[in-house]
Order: sequence, then structure tokens, then C-alpha cells
Amino acid sequence: MAKNAFYAQSGGVTAVINASAAGVIETARRHPDRIAKVYAGRNGIIGALTEDLIDTNQEPDEAIRALRHTPSGAFGSCRYKLKSLEDNKREYDRLMEVFRAHDIGYFFYNGGGDSADTCHKVSQLSENAGFPIQAIHIPKTVDNDLPITDNCPGFGSVAKYIAVSTREASLDVRSMAKTSTRIFVLEVMGRHAGWIAAAGGLAADAQTDIPVVILFPEVAFDQERFFARVRENVEKYDYCSIVVSEGAHWPDGTFLAEQGTRDAFGHAQLGGAAPVVANMIREALGYKFHWAVADYMQRAARHIASKTDVEQAFAMGRAGVELALAGENAVMPTIVRTANEPYAWEVGRAALSEVANVEKMMPQEFITEDGFSITDAGRQYLLPLIQGEDYPPYRNGMPDYVTLANAPVARKLAPFEL
Amino acid sequence: MAKNAFYAQSGGVTAVINASAAGVIETARRHPDRIAKVYAGRNGIIGALTEDLIDTNQEPDEAIRALRHTPSGAFGSCRYKLKSLEDNKREYDRLMEVFRAHDIGYFFYNGGGDSADTCHKVSQLSENAGFPIQAIHIPKTVDNDLPITDNCPGFGSVAKYIAVSTREASLDVRSMAKTSTRIFVLEVMGRHAGWIAAAGGLAADAQTDIPVVILFPEVAFDQERFFARVRENVEKYDYCSIVVSEGAHWPDGTFLAEQGTRDAFGHAQLGGAAPVVANMIREALGYKFHWAVADYMQRAARHIASKTDVEQAFAMGRAGVELALAGENAVMPTIVRTANEPYAWEVGRAALSEVANVEKMMPQEFITEDGFSITDAGRQYLLPLIQGEDYPPYRNGMPDYVTLANAPVARKLAPFEL
Repeated sequence: MAKNAFYAQSGGVTAVINASAAGVIETARRHPDRIAKVYAGRNGIIGALTEDLIDTNQEPDEAIRALRHTPSGAFGSCRYKLKSLEDNKREYDRLMEVFRAHDIGYFFYNGGGDSADTCHKVSQLSENAGFPIQAIHIPKTVDNDLPITDNCPGFGSVAKYIAVSTREASLDVRSMAKTSTRIFVLEVMGRHAGWIAAAGGLAADAQTDIPVVILFPEVAFDQERFFARVRENVEKYDYCSIVVSEGAHWPDGTFLAEQGTRDAFGHAQLGGAAPVVANMIREALGYKFHWAVADYMQRAARHIASKTDVEQAFAMGRAGVELALAGENAVMPTIVRTANEPYAWEVGRAALSEVANVEKMMPQEFITEDGFSITDAGRQYLLPLIQGEDYPPYRNGMPDYVTLANAPVARKLAPFEL
Repeated sequence: MAKNAFYAQSGGVTAVINASAAGVIETARRHPDRIAKVYAGRNGIIGALTEDLIDTNQEPDEAIRALRHTPSGAFGSCRYKLKSLEDNKREYDRLMEVFRAHDIGYFFYNGGGDSADTCHKVSQLSENAGFPIQAIHIPKTVDNDLPITDNCPGFGSVAKYIAVSTREASLDVRSMAKTSTRIFVLEVMGRHAGWIAAAGGLAADAQTDIPVVILFPEVAFDQERFFARVRENVEKYDYCSIVVSEGAHWPDGTFLAEQGTRDAFGHAQLGGAAPVVANMIREALGYKFHWAVADYMQRAARHIASKTDVEQAFAMGRAGVELALAGENAVMPTIVRTANEPYAWEVGRAALSEVANVEKMMPQEFITEDGFSITDAGRQYLLPLIQGEDYPPYRNGMPDYVTLANAPVARKLAPFEL
């Protein structure tokens, strides 16, 4: 007999998380005998707790198809981590109450490390609380730090955006270096791991000789060696580009971005590693600079998404449903790299017990010995992930992103205070 | 008898200035009986003064064609303004010496307001100094502030980038607003005029209801009204996007970016209006924020260039050569808007005497009365300029931008000190 499914988006959204949603919903629609309706949580797991469910069945097929080319979280996301079952019985009881009231037998949770943990806890409801639910985690995170899977949907598109933007801005600086700007600093996301910063290294290749210095969170900042490298590049190329991770830090662990900057009122100013790095170069070396902070633009840039990333995001959503239909619980579909040149991959699966609370760091061998670049191994890992373009349709000069109606499912229960 | 041509790129480069270069060089190549060779100035006018010329004839046709899809200045640009003939006879004498030595009869100068002025002065060499030269200015500036022409090549692509990025980042914030970020601030270029900031207003349209507040340099910053507007948006939409021009300023003229920020050593910190605006919102209203600074990324973003802009940039280069072949001097080709819906344009011409030192400001009627948005008239002006996509070719996941060989022309003269 058919059960309903619950789907929610969790944590920071990406350019392709909606492609995973499309994968889930389109696949579910092909199995009405097993999955009656897909209910989405409005604003992630909060939607489940507050019984604020969205009836995705009311969306026409073309709207669901348009999710594939629409960035951000179409149903709303949230940053909300469930505590353990022992510490927070009330919330788990509520989840079961909502699931029971809406006949939900499948739980699809689309997120990163924290949500894998939440999903794992929900998966245990069947064993620990006798509640029949199959919980499947669908990987998503620009941080690329989930274990086992080759990469995480969302990351490839950020990587492409950063690689392309670094190349473009570097060509700009190269044009201006004779009489004006010599230094361009781009700040990118990644507080703990340098995956995104590493993508800046793809700006240069055999055909495009661009001096890019990367400041990774994995490498304690060595100011003197950094200045020496920048000076070296400016002497050779007339200019230098720097990609700095928001997580770049001094040997004592202090973030570069926290370098004691204060506003007019004396309040500590929430940084920006880019202006800090740019200013220290000017003071030490006297070069004129420009700096940029990509922030949300990088993870929302569906207009320059990686085709590989879009396909993998969709495939993960589809595979999640297929795993559920195969009777699985407490698993996550994964991307398995089977070849590098040409890149080939297939769908695998991992037990959530091996995913939850494990953070995949960037391997040391992806960073050059001097700490400022990516190695060939790093390049070989990264390049396949940015392959292909998958442009959204445009209307009147602008990308035609869909906004869903997000019709609510009628509530059946008493309100719940978060 | 055929003469050589000199072409140079001046001032800040753009995503499409090389398309104008392609227009010049391809058109010149079709008239070998009139234009023997096109020499490019390495780093703009400095290349002429120092006799540092590039022989573009050594570039194969396909490399010149690739300029059309390559951002930045392929020959190098510079910020270097010639003084008037009276104040700086030495430099004009040198220009004539170099032009004579290399048999240059055409001067194509590709730039904004300052370069139009330089070009105008060079054009007067024929009359004032009896030196036979035809000087044609080819319009280019992301600032969109040249008079007479409908718009300036380079601007449409920045506008498209800012409109698309604002839409994408706004959808991201919308997803997160329930439990996390409610404010997204994007800082854009435009110290004197709000043309680029205005493009942020295109992020929203009839199909995409996004609350965008624009801080224009044309409107003195009114903090209380701004806070009220932001609060209003957050109450209605849960979030608010803000596009702030780097030229946004307080009633006394102080830039928002200069708000007395000091680094750990007490040095005034070169700002960033975005973090200033974001921090003041948090202090006054308590909303969590993210901010981005687009900087060079916006003007180098050839990957999302406006097709209209690319076509107009190319057409301006071609028209410059055609004007020269028609015997003109001291003119600039212009874009003449002949219809709005659908947009239609043709090539016109303006006398440099009417272009030089005239800055086109944004009309008051493009800004809504409250000072925070664009009007329908503004939208009607802007929308045609971002129409169409003109994607560069990709190789191995990255845009395949050309780097020219830039072979030097053999020097014939003694060195010259700038």
C-alpha cells in the first residue's frame, strides 16, 4: 500500500539542491503505487516539527522540471539540528506524530554533515521506537565534506564559478597592471576545508598562465613567505591573484578575517579576509589592489553551474527514492568515481552510520608543498567536477527560475512550539 | 596609399572591449588598400609614447575572432590622461614622432570619458600641428556615462551580471530567512553614477517578486528611512536584498565605505560599503546578514555577457574604422536607440567636441521618488541592454579565452621617459 514521502532541504542551499528535489519528486511520481504524495517541509525539518507541510503534488510537472535549473531551496531550508533521541525525546515524538498523521513512510533529507546525522537519528525511529519509517539522506553541500561519496552535489558548481571568476578577474588585472591594479584578492567560502579555495587553482592551466596564490584553511598563514610569493609573481607577471578562504588563519588559529578591525564606534567589525589580505599587501609591498567577496553569489550561481554537478544532484535525488523503494533505511546514495580521463561515475550507497559526524578534509597531497597552490592530483580530482555547462532558460534577458506555489497541506494536529 | 592604424585600450577594461578590438581589426583587414596594418599600443597610450607597439597582423584570424568572446584588455590598458597641448607639448610631439616613424594615419582610441578627451586632443594634431591623423574614439565604459550614445559598450554586460547575481543571491537568502540570514548586501561599482546599481532592480520582475533596496550615489543616504524600508521588507518577505553603489554617501558627501573603519594598527581601512551597510542593519534591526563585493568580477564576467552588449561593442569597433575610411576625424560612433519594444538600434556618430568632458548622469526619472528603486522608465531603458546570452566556448570546463602573442613592432626611435 502506498505511503506518503517527506522531503526537506537542510542547511545552506546551493545552485543544484533543487535538482535533487526534482530527482526525488519526478521519481516518486513514477511510482504512485508505492509513494502516494511527496510532502516537502517548509523551511526544512522545522516544517515537519510545526506540521508546516507543502503539497508538491499540486505542482505541475513543468514546475518540478524547472527545479532542475533553479538555484536556492525551493521549499525553504533551515539551520536546525535535532539533538540525540535521549536529549530530545519531545522533538522525535512530535516527528512521529506528524508522520503518523500524514501517513508518511519515507523520509528524504537533503543536506550536509549535520543533516546526515539528523537523518540517521530519524532512521533509528523504526528500530528504537517501532515507528515504520525509511530515512534516506541525499547528499548536498558546497563544503564538499561528506565522506565516502566522491564529491557532494553543490560543490562542483561553486568550483566552476570560482575557477571562472578567478580567471576572468585575473585577465582584468593583467590588463591594468602596468599603471594601476596589480593585486586582486577574491574571498571564497570554506571555513574548515579548502575545497572551494582549491578551485581557484583551476583558473590557470597549460593554455592560460595566470599567477594564483591560494590561502587554504589547511595551511597556517605565513606572512613573510606569502609576501615573498606575491612579490615574485608581480615581478614575473606584473600582477598576482589571490584566492583566500574565509577560513584562512594565523598560526595561532585566529582567522585573518578577525584581524582586529573596528568600526567608527570601536566595535569589532565582522571581517572579510579579502580586505585584510589586500591591505597587508599594500602596506608591505605598496601594490595597488582590488578585492572581491563572492559570498552567496558563489553558491547561488546557477547561471554558470557545472553540468556534471547538475546531473549528479538529480541522480542523487532519484537514487534516494530508488533506495527507499528497494526497502533501504539509514543510507545515503553516493557518487562513485570509476575513471578520471574521461571522468566516469556511478551511483553507490553508504550506511548513514558511516556518514554521520565524519568530515572529509582535503587530502594533503592536493596542496603543493609550499602551501599556495593545488597539485596535479588536486587538479585531477577537481577538473571533472566542473565539466560541462547547463544553462538555465532565459526570459527577457534574465534566467527564468521557478517559484513554486508551495500550497500548504491542511494541518491535523495541535501547534508545536520549537 | 595605405597608412597604418594605431589602436589602444584605455582605462578600466570590460567584458566586451576586446569585441570592439575585434571589430576594428577585422574591419581593417578587409581594407588592406587603405589600412596596411593595425598596431596596438601595449598598455594603451603608454604604448604609443614609449613606442611599444604590438603588430596585430601577426595574429591569425581565429585569434582576432576569439577576442569577441574574451574579456579584459587583450593589449593591456592604462590609466594615463594626456594634458592639454599647451601644457604638455612634449608628449604630443612624441606621439607625432612615433606615428610618423610607423606611418600611422589612423588613431582609434577605445575608452571612456577621459580617453574621449585624449582622443579629441590627438584629433587636433592635424589642424594645430599639421600632422595628418584621423582620430576616432570608440566608446567603452562600464560607468555608462558617455553622452549622446544610448549606452556604452561594457555596461550592458555588467548590468546583466548584477541583475542575475542579485536575483540568484536573493533566492538563496529567501531560502534561509526562516532561521538564518535575512539580509544580503551586494556592493557594485559606480562612484559617481548609479547606472550599475540600477541594474540590481532588474532582479525583480512581474514573475519574480524579490525585495531589492538600491542605494544610489545620486541619492543622499537617509539612514532612518533606509532602516524603515528594510524592516518593512523583512516583515513582508522575511528577507531583504540591498544593492549598494560604491558611491553611496551620507548627506555631507562622505562615502558610506569611508565610515571610519580602522584596522588593528589604527590605520583607516579602505572600505567596502557592503560591510558597513550590513553591520549598521544588524546593529539597528538585529538581522543576520551576508554581504558580497562584486568588484572586478562584475566587469570581467564575459561568461554571462549580454549578447546585445557584445554586438554593440563589435559594431562600435567596426563603425570606428568605417568612419575613418569615410575620411572622418574627431568623431565617435554612437548607439542610437530607435525603438524600445522590441529594442532596435543603429549606429550614429557624435563629434568629439561634444563628447569630451561631458558626463551623462542617470536621469532623475529613472529613480523612484523614495530613492530606493528604479522606475518603469528606468526599467525600460535598462532591460534591452541585457537581452540575449552570448556564451564563450568552453574547453575542459573553463571558458576558452584567448591570450594573444602580442608580438612587438621593431623600435625605430630613441627611448622616451614617461
